Amino acid sequence: MMPPNIVRIGHAIFTVTDLARSRHFYVDLLGLNVLHENRDAIYLRGIEDREWTLKLELASSARVRQIGFKVASEADLDALQQLAQDEGLLHRWESEQDRPRMLRVQDHWGIPLAFYFQSQRYPWLLQSFDRHRGAGIQRVDHVNVFTPQVDAMSRWYQKALAFRLTEVSEDKDGRAWGAWLHRKGNVHDIAITNGTGPRMHHFAYWVPDASRISQMCDILAGAHAAAHIERGPGRHGISNAFFLYVRDPDGHRTEYYTADYLTVDPDFEPIRWSVDDPRRQQLWGGIAPKSWFTEGSDVESFDGGVVEQQEPLLGLPAYIK
Amino acid sequence: MMPPNIVRIGHAIFTVTDLARSRHFYVDLLGLNVLHENRDAIYLRGIEDREWTLKLELASSARVRQIGFKVASEADLDALQQLAQDEGLLHRWESEQDRPRMLRVQDHWGIPLAFYFQSQRYPWLLQSFDRHRGAGIQRVDHVNVFTPQVDAMSRWYQKALAFRLTEVSEDKDGRAWGAWLHRKGNVHDIAITNGTGPRMHHFAYWVPDASRISQMCDILAGAHAAAHIERGPGRHGISNAFFLYVRDPDGHRTEYYTADYLTVDPDFEPIRWSVDDPRRQQLWGGIAPKSWFTEGSDVESFDGGVVEQQEPLLGLPAYIK
Amino acid sequence: MMPPNIVRIGHAIFTVTDLARSRHFYVDLLGLNVLHENRDAIYLRGIEDREWTLKLELASSARVRQIGFKVASEADLDALQQLAQDEGLLHRWESEQDRPRMLRVQDHWGIPLAFYFQSQRYPWLLQSFDRHRGAGIQRVDHVNVFTPQVDAMSRWYQKALAFRLTEVSEDKDGRAWGAWLHRKGNVHDIAITNGTGPRMHHFAYWVPDASRISQMCDILAGAHAAAHIERGPGRHGISNAFFLYVRDPDGHRTEYYTADYLTVDPDFEPIRWSVDDPRRQQLWGGIAPKSWFTEGSDVESFDGGVVEQQEPLLGLPAYIK
Amino acid sequence: MMPPNIVRIGHAIFTVTDLARSRHFYVDLLGLNVLHENRDAIYLRGIEDREWTLKLELASSARVRQIGFKVASEADLDALQQLAQDEGLLHRWESEQDRPRMLRVQDHWGIPLAFYFQSQRYPWLLQSFDRHRGAGIQRVDHVNVFTPQVDAMSRWYQKALAFRLTEVSEDKDGRAWGAWLHRKGNVHDIAITNGTGPRMHHFAYWVPDASRISQMCDILAGAHAAAHIERGPGRHGISNAFFLYVRDPDGHRTEYYTADYLTVDPDFEPIRWSVDDPRRQQLWGGIAPKSWFTEGSDVESFDGGVVEQQEPLLGLPAYIK
Repeated sequence: MMPPNIVRIGHAIFTVTDLARSRHFYVDLLGLNVLHENRDAIYLRGIEDREWTLKLELASSARVRQIGFKVASEADLDALQQLAQDEGLLHRWESEQDRPRMLRVQDHWGIPLAFYFQSQRYPWLLQSFDRHRGAGIQRVDHVNVFTPQVDAMSRWYQKALAFRLTEVSEDKDGRAWGAWLHRKGNVHDIAITNGTGPRMHHFAYWVPDASRISQMCDILAGAHAAAHIERGPGRHGISNAFFLYVRDPDGHRTEYYTADYLTVDPDFEPIRWSVDDPRRQQLWGGIAPKSWFTEGSDVESFDGGVVEQQEPLLGLPAYIK
Repeated sequence: MMPPNIVRIGHAIFTVTDLARSRHFYVDLLGLNVLHENRDAIYLRGIEDREWTLKLELASSARVRQIGFKVASEADLDALQQLAQDEGLLHRWESEQDRPRMLRVQDHWGIPLAFYFQSQRYPWLLQSFDRHRGAGIQRVDHVNVFTPQVDAMSRWYQKALAFRLTEVSEDKDGRAWGAWLHRKGNVHDIAITNGTGPRMHHFAYWVPDASRISQMCDILAGAHAAAHIERGPGRHGISNAFFLYVRDPDGHRTEYYTADYLTVDPDFEPIRWSVDDPRRQQLWGGIAPKSWFTEGSDVESFDGGVVEQQEPLLGLPAYIK
Repeated sequence: MMPPNIVRIGHAIFTVTDLARSRHFYVDLLGLNVLHENRDAIYLRGIEDREWTLKLELASSARVRQIGFKVASEADLDALQQLAQDEGLLHRWESEQDRPRMLRVQDHWGIPLAFYFQSQRYPWLLQSFDRHRGAGIQRVDHVNVFTPQVDAMSRWYQKALAFRLTEVSEDKDGRAWGAWLHRKGNVHDIAITNGTGPRMHHFAYWVPDASRISQMCDILAGAHAAAHIERGPGRHGISNAFFLYVRDPDGHRTEYYTADYLTVDPDFEPIRWSVDDPRRQQLWGGIAPKSWFTEGSDVESFDGGVVEQQEPLLGLPAYIK
Repeated sequence: MMPPNIVRIGHAIFTVTDLARSRHFYVDLLGLNVLHENRDAIYLRGIEDREWTLKLELASSARVRQIGFKVASEADLDALQQLAQDEGLLHRWESEQDRPRMLRVQDHWGIPLAFYFQSQRYPWLLQSFDRHRGAGIQRVDHVNVFTPQVDAMSRWYQKALAFRLTEVSEDKDGRAWGAWLHRKGNVHDIAITNGTGPRMHHFAYWVPDASRISQMCDILAGAHAAAHIERGPGRHGISNAFFLYVRDPDGHRTEYYTADYLTVDPDFEPIRWSVDDPRRQQLWGGIAPKSWFTEGSDVESFDGGVVEQQEPLLGLPAYIK
């Protein structure tokens, strides 16, 4: 039995409490591009995205409604439905703007996933350089979620959904503290890290190069909005990527990320790090703020509430006070 | 019957007529890294490569001995042997440094391919930034070959080897002039372009970003070796990549390439260009020199000679005099 | 008798034949910033400029009305008037937007200069990164003029106006072909090169770094306006600067320039190049198009006509056909 | 009476306790270039420097022996001697490698200055790109010293030595906390900041652009030497420069700095900041570590000891705990 063929991370839906404020942040300051908008929602994308990859939806509280993954065919959606049924996972068919057939599934750890194949494609902006905005954000890259059960969750994503492990961090007893898993051939489509969960840690876009990350910092500084910068810029040990983390006006964390590596070899051997080695996080030596380890976005349950959260069993890295 | 699973471009073997001179060029000036060397050959790689990706071999004339592709398993090699046998292609088992089981096949158009799964892996240099040299060349990216029969060859690579078409250039009668085909998820592992063939047009490495391409130009200039720069830097229309082409002391052409886009979606629609539109080649408006359209490297036949070449049926782009 | 103290290049006034078209080019595409505008003129500046540095003025033909230099005091203006009177140079007092007292002088070779001390200062945009446009053009850097008498003109600028020579190109008989002269401490405020003159060759702005020059090319490409790129990007031998030359819709040439060097030492020794050495122009080996040697902007005379031009005595560099 | 004409910052002499270790740090990791070396000292320079700009001298303790400034003529040295005599400053004539006539002066606040005009010039490495090392460090840019008496010291440098003030930070009572003063036309040749002094805070080099600063971080990380990074990279409010601070194996702090602005206008108005505004230091919002405010290098007295230090009267910025 082949697992369903997931192609890549596809999108996220964030609920936000002030749509105009969020639009200013993501569009005017960071430089995402509006594909659609109405009174209640804005659909954003990077310059390479041919479809929307981040939906901001007005609501009374800030949550992550879903994390979307593109699959290879409609048949893969059916296979996912079968899987959900077999494993007793909450699931239902939904539709969204441009995506008529989407299977929403809550995984065993409470993360609200959405799978889709068909998506209306629009001309990209990749070579419309004269229309690029801000830091020229390029394409959706990955999501990172918190769970208290990194090891179990990572194994299930590998076994049931055929994600492939590229890097892993472990505590001194060999327990998985974080796992980086991909489908599309770079370091990750999803990372799973230890923490109170289910919550979203961050949602990430690829940017063309490191100079664009400096430019994003400069733009936020110019707008007296540098308080949104939570961490970076810097160079990750894990993934080798050049990165910046920002918090949006509702606290949702996004990452701007570039320059990782190719992982398509089937005999690629995952890279192992000690969670207590700060180089895994920042080769240049800076320490992430504690908020980076403890804060995240609540995720929405099927009934419109918040999925109940549990504390992690493993602690913070030794170097975080 | 599933086609064999080719993972990605793997390597090239160039014969060169003065090994010390070539070593100076590729190692001291461009910044490739020596993995092995002996009196007769040097094995080079980028900082992300865990294996050698360019072998320079001393010989009395400069040729391309083979273009290597990594496959997903030993069984895929067996399937390729079966394919070669079924289609009447010249083939034989060979071994090379670090690659004990390699299937060499000459395709219908005369290109000497080599397929392998097993390859000795070495620690990469990716995060050994203190040991990076020159322009910090990162990893093998693709090969480009000349053939008089672009359309037939492109169709066979898609059908028999499951390459996927990302971009294509066509003449005004709709005949394929160039085809870009991938396996690893970016724009290409192989490009096939119209010209006297079989010959190699170029072999390409990924570099971390555009600043490294300027640095490569500066280094060549500093060494009074700028005559090796044949074309660029510039921005390709096809692939969107930032590029530079250089000719080595024997005339072999290599490209340094960065910032293309992701092609993993199964419903990705190939991008079509007119061969007479100079934007496909250089968005910034420069015209490639005529040498770029007419010169290439001879490829070696199974008996150690040069594979016989044929003139193309299609002409040069209208804007080339 | 001390020469008047000229501080730096200050501005240029271009007449253009379609103000909206020129505004689109300089503001929307290249990224200069509008300080003032009315029906007949637009006043532009870079992000570091505290005053306007390029005025575009609507007229029936495209010319350069004047090249402005900032002086150190009002007394220096009086000294310049005395100099003009003593040497029999056409001159008159004028005023312009923000510059109430400006001495216009036509030098011995026909170049329309304008000197000013007082200039209304406006808050700069340097740290308003959120308001930067396009390539983030930073500040006025220099002007380059054509004359048939490079040697005489260069000597007068050194002697009468205390410009300091940084680099010089010479033909095989030792005759000056081009001279680079500064006041502000980098390679030049004015360059004087051999050609039919008096004409302006180009007017140049500093950009923050080379990545901004690539971005400018990309933006022009995105707008299908890459035909405006005349030369580059590349690395000059003379000045060491990273450069790009573009032609505006009326043919006026501007350069975007970065990364030259400091020239404040009084014992700095000018660097000498052979005009027949193409490295002086482009270390990376590209050859400038012939238009770059032969085309320029007419300069306006005191009576509103064009200053009469003379052919150069020296020829083109040997490598230009 | 005109003040002596100081041209620019010229050099520093650091004593270090392990010359091989310091050589590895500055040459192999950071990328300075050796101009001379012997058993007891190494003379370093950037690629644009035509003379040595940092001397490392073996000694039993780590100090700053002197901060050198280039003057415009031998007569300016004589004028400086007269000034020292008139003001009762310790001074004596010395000579150093390549600099036969150097006036050493201890200023009123204990900083050991050295002035010179003549200096043996060597071919620069600016266009020998193939010989550039590491981050391609370009030229000496400035020094920053600690003193408890910022206001008095800044006024004297302006009055007696004709330095020009570009930026200043002040506490809430309007007392100067830091002053940035230049001679060469960019933001500073010397900065004077509040702290226990006299000590050197840092000595700074210009790098070609921000990508080189990231590269320096990467190289230090690759060598497992990132603990030498004390602060940055980031964007200063004061100076607008992109910066990185590193500590050498003896604790001497150097800065790598690029992209400030031009200050040659005589009517340039100094920019004023509140010391309690963290944007003056880092537009991107990071806070400098406390060590950055409290640690510095002892400076050597005329008798070979350490100049006695005094505590500052003003406190740390409000945002530093």
